[in-house]
Amino acid sequence: MWEVLSEIDIFRADPWIHLRQERVKLPDGRIVDDYFQLTLPDFTVIYAMTVDGKVVVIHQYKHGARQVSLTLPGGLAETGENSLIAAKRELCEETGYGGGEWTHLGSFVAHGNLGCGMGHYYFTRNVTVTSQPDSGDLESMSIHLMAPEQLIQALRSGHVKLLNHAAAISMADLLRQNDVS
Amino acid sequence: MWEVLSEIDIFRADPWIHLRQERVKLPDGRIVDDYFQLTLPDFTVIYAMTVDGKVVVIHQYKHGARQVSLTLPGGLAETGENSLIAAKRELCEETGYGGGEWTHLGSFVAHGNLGCGMGHYYFTRNVTVTSQPDSGDLESMSIHLMAPEQLIQALRSGHVKLLNHAAAISMADLLRQNDVS
Repeated sequence: MWEVLSEIDIFRADPWIHLRQERVKLPDGRIVDDYFQLTLPDFTVIYAMTVDGKVVVIHQYKHGARQVSLTLPGGLAETGENSLIAAKRELCEETGYGGGEWTHLGSFVAHGNLGCGMGHYYFTRNVTVTSQPDSGDLESMSIHLMAPEQLIQALRSGHVKLLNHAAAISMADLLRQNDVS
Repeated sequence: MWEVLSEIDIFRADPWIHLRQERVKLPDGRIVDDYFQLTLPDFTVIYAMTVDGKVVVIHQYKHGARQVSLTLPGGLAETGENSLIAAKRELCEETGYGGGEWTHLGSFVAHGNLGCGMGHYYFTRNVTVTSQPDSGDLESMSIHLMAPEQLIQALRSGHVKLLNHAAAISMADLLRQNDVS
């Protein structure tokens, strides 16, 4: 592990963003004076399949991409919130779906150099409508159901603009295909 | 698309990082004064398969994750560099492998809210050793060959710590399985 010799806060707007500059020492003794690190909130992404075998997807504008994207449900975890609880909360708030049998697909750091928070990826089967969605998000969104094969086709056709959703769809589909075969 | 009414530079260290604060107007008329946007360089990730059907992987420490991760080859694109050319360059510099038949798996924005650069994902088949690796990266790395099924198992066992590599491995494996079936 690289040794952090010192660090300087560059910008901080808690809990959303914390940019700092680290002075690090590499294993070979070299010193890097300006290795930037960015702390962002953890987030969840959920591949949720209904009892009919359809995936719950969202169409929404995402400002980071400057365009509308097909996404899965998900969102920022609250500070200290368990990632499975955060995932269930986000699925319910954004889509009204609940219940289901949950599998953790993995947790991954968003950026290899800067950090940028950790994403927690879940696959849940047999969800049902349990409430009215009320995301509270800035983005207006429309909720749809898609067959898994359609969703893979949409991914390949460029309708998914965001990395975390491309990752979740692909990881979940690999697991789903293993279950089927 | 949200309307950007104004923006303030918070921090800039070209070409590595550019953090700014936008004042945006949502479609429903609401104004958000502090929507942060982070511009980072584009990057490539390459799932490269040898003529023997093995995947070229790297073990390396990644400071963003604060630990060693199993990764695929890849790295930052240079300013204005075509993503396929960048991918071929990175594969060669990091691993010494070249040639191959290349397929674009997709390009995705790294963070739905902040932006954080775009990743370009490639699958290449039938690569061969064409030169000595010389990455020039800060990280020391060791290069290995893995069977695709082993790599999926490593992903599921938590040996891949980074989202962009988890995404590339999963997207490429779905494509590979389709080719095989």
